[in-house]
Amino acid sequence: MDRAKRVEALREVMTEKNLDAAIIFNFENQFYFSGLKAITYSRPIIMVVEQARQSLIIPKLEEKHAKEKTDANPIHIYHEVEGRGSTDYHELFDKVLNGIEGSQVGIEFGSLPAELASAIQEKGHDLVDIQADIVKMRAIKSGEEIDMIKESGKLVSGALKHTLENSGSGKSELEIDYHGNQYLFEEISRHHTDSTLDYFVMSPSGVERTNMPHVFSNTRKLETGDVIIHSRQVGLNGYRAECERTYFIGAPTEGQREAFRVMLEAHLAALDFIKAGVTAKAVNQAALDVIKEAGYDSYVSHRTGHGIGIGQHEEPSLRFDNDLVLEAGMVFCVEPGIYIPGVGGFRHSDTVVLTEDGAEVITEYPRDLESMVFE
Amino acid sequence: MDRAKRVEALREVMTEKNLDAAIIFNFENQFYFSGLKAITYSRPIIMVVEQARQSLIIPKLEEKHAKEKTDANPIHIYHEVEGRGSTDYHELFDKVLNGIEGSQVGIEFGSLPAELASAIQEKGHDLVDIQADIVKMRAIKSGEEIDMIKESGKLVSGALKHTLENSGSGKSELEIDYHGNQYLFEEISRHHTDSTLDYFVMSPSGVERTNMPHVFSNTRKLETGDVIIHSRQVGLNGYRAECERTYFIGAPTEGQREAFRVMLEAHLAALDFIKAGVTAKAVNQAALDVIKEAGYDSYVSHRTGHGIGIGQHEEPSLRFDNDLVLEAGMVFCVEPGIYIPGVGGFRHSDTVVLTEDGAEVITEYPRDLESMVFE
Repeated sequence: MDRAKRVEALREVMTEKNLDAAIIFNFENQFYFSGLKAITYSRPIIMVVEQARQSLIIPKLEEKHAKEKTDANPIHIYHEVEGRGSTDYHELFDKVLNGIEGSQVGIEFGSLPAELASAIQEKGHDLVDIQADIVKMRAIKSGEEIDMIKESGKLVSGALKHTLENSGSGKSELEIDYHGNQYLFEEISRHHTDSTLDYFVMSPSGVERTNMPHVFSNTRKLETGDVIIHSRQVGLNGYRAECERTYFIGAPTEGQREAFRVMLEAHLAALDFIKAGVTAKAVNQAALDVIKEAGYDSYVSHRTGHGIGIGQHEEPSLRFDNDLVLEAGMVFCVEPGIYIPGVGGFRHSDTVVLTEDGAEVITEYPRDLESMVFE
Repeated sequence: MDRAKRVEALREVMTEKNLDAAIIFNFENQFYFSGLKAITYSRPIIMVVEQARQSLIIPKLEEKHAKEKTDANPIHIYHEVEGRGSTDYHELFDKVLNGIEGSQVGIEFGSLPAELASAIQEKGHDLVDIQADIVKMRAIKSGEEIDMIKESGKLVSGALKHTLENSGSGKSELEIDYHGNQYLFEEISRHHTDSTLDYFVMSPSGVERTNMPHVFSNTRKLETGDVIIHSRQVGLNGYRAECERTYFIGAPTEGQREAFRVMLEAHLAALDFIKAGVTAKAVNQAALDVIKEAGYDSYVSHRTGHGIGIGQHEEPSLRFDNDLVLEAGMVFCVEPGIYIPGVGGFRHSDTVVLTEDGAEVITEYPRDLESMVFE
């Protein structure tokens, strides 16, 4: 199992850094190390890894689920019914902290809430940030992970196709999203046994809304002349791929055609450039060079792309200040964007898996302007 | 606007507690105080409230969105493109902290990540937990909030109806979810302009899976003889309601009929009991009394219910140890559950709004066993 290897890799980091325990609170990291994909809500789950054991603090109603999915032992349960034991996860956390031999505790500085960090410090333990180490582990995907991401790549491409080809004037953003969703629910039920589905979708439409790269779909109805950025992620059994296309209802204006042309050229340049051995910032630059050449660089508001996997956005970031050399096994969404007031937002995204000898694009739908006009 | 009043209420708490600033990091709280419902992802957003100003630290791609939705001023932007200003939210946070006059800073202890809490402490500021104060504010809903929740109550009831009435042997959990989703996307697009939709749905089926109160729907196919817990939440423009029903494909067994009868009686007892003026724990007890009387109390694994609103689960908790006296304007999901190995899980949930003179159930679908059998 991958996850036993992952916990071993974490223990190696602990040895290197002289840590006596690692507290895993971020739910993506918990899934990565334990296999438990809990529905996140009002009841915290805390994973504690030591050299000799891997314990879990969970609410009673996750007991069966945790026992089925994880190797954690012991499992400390907090209750909501009187007379069964502890009813407070703080109390259980305190008990687990008391059992740690030593005083160096690794935490995810960007995820662990202040109250739990304080509880560790109150025991006289020192906090050591291990977030970057976990990010690094998660960045290189195993064969098993890549297989799942590739399957998600097919699914997200199919869902995108269903949304685009069912788009039209008079339908709302939410309604076009739903066509792709329907495909997903049916397709996954048909071909994947005992599988879960995560999905994220947004379809800002019109000049105003496409200029906001991240807004939830709403009930705005598409109109002839609209530009739309349809953005989708699908995670089959927890591993995600992303596909996005910028398209039009009716003919784009001259300004939109030109912006689209530049975005597409930047997108293809970055897809062509990305591979193991180049730096993250060079990929960013490959897209930016095209945009700059066209004089559109003031309309860029975000990096060229990001890693993906368990998380919607993961490291490494394809950003101007990231010197990291890319490696085989990394997975990226390549998505340079241009946002021009009065004209619209323009962004395609595809997911690529880096291999020993290149990069494999795992999402597939036409990218050219002619294919991007619907009635 | 509600949100100006909310910020004023927060400032009153700050005055009482002698705080010079409040850092709002939890995204539900950010939506509550600012109106900005950002898609949560890899780029943190930080809200800082002082008596004289309300500032926001946001990534460049949320600039337009934030200016449209919030009253924040100043808005500090971090960039992903070279030469435009700060590229690091830590740096902006540092700058904002330097501008705070005084040294007492309120934070959400359960949400603010350790790294930001440390940054505050490194300035020599003291941390004061204001989480409970915000929880208390959010627990009493305004008329405007209640209207939105009621609308969500209608929508979630309709979606549940569509899933139940389209359930049948051979369909997967994901496929039955999708029938209700379809209704939602269409209904909202038809009747609500400029509106967003949050929804959550899970439909564990069969004896094994219904015994896990919180698992994502998967591709397991329904079979004759299955018990199913269909659980739904809908949030129209960010305000949620919940409806859940336990139902059967084909005739339930004798054991299932009896467990259902007890669950239903407990559910109705709690719905009948809940009102302003009683304690949270008394509502929990009203359900538990029925379950105990039937000898099923060892099969209870969670509290009788929880608050709802912006959050999927909010305080107050309808739990055995909560002495809080309920008030008009609170909104609850009432959902006592019984989980019996070998027999199945049984839980209905309805959402109720507490009024001056009682409680109004705002989700509606039959609850009786006869209505809960599908082919």
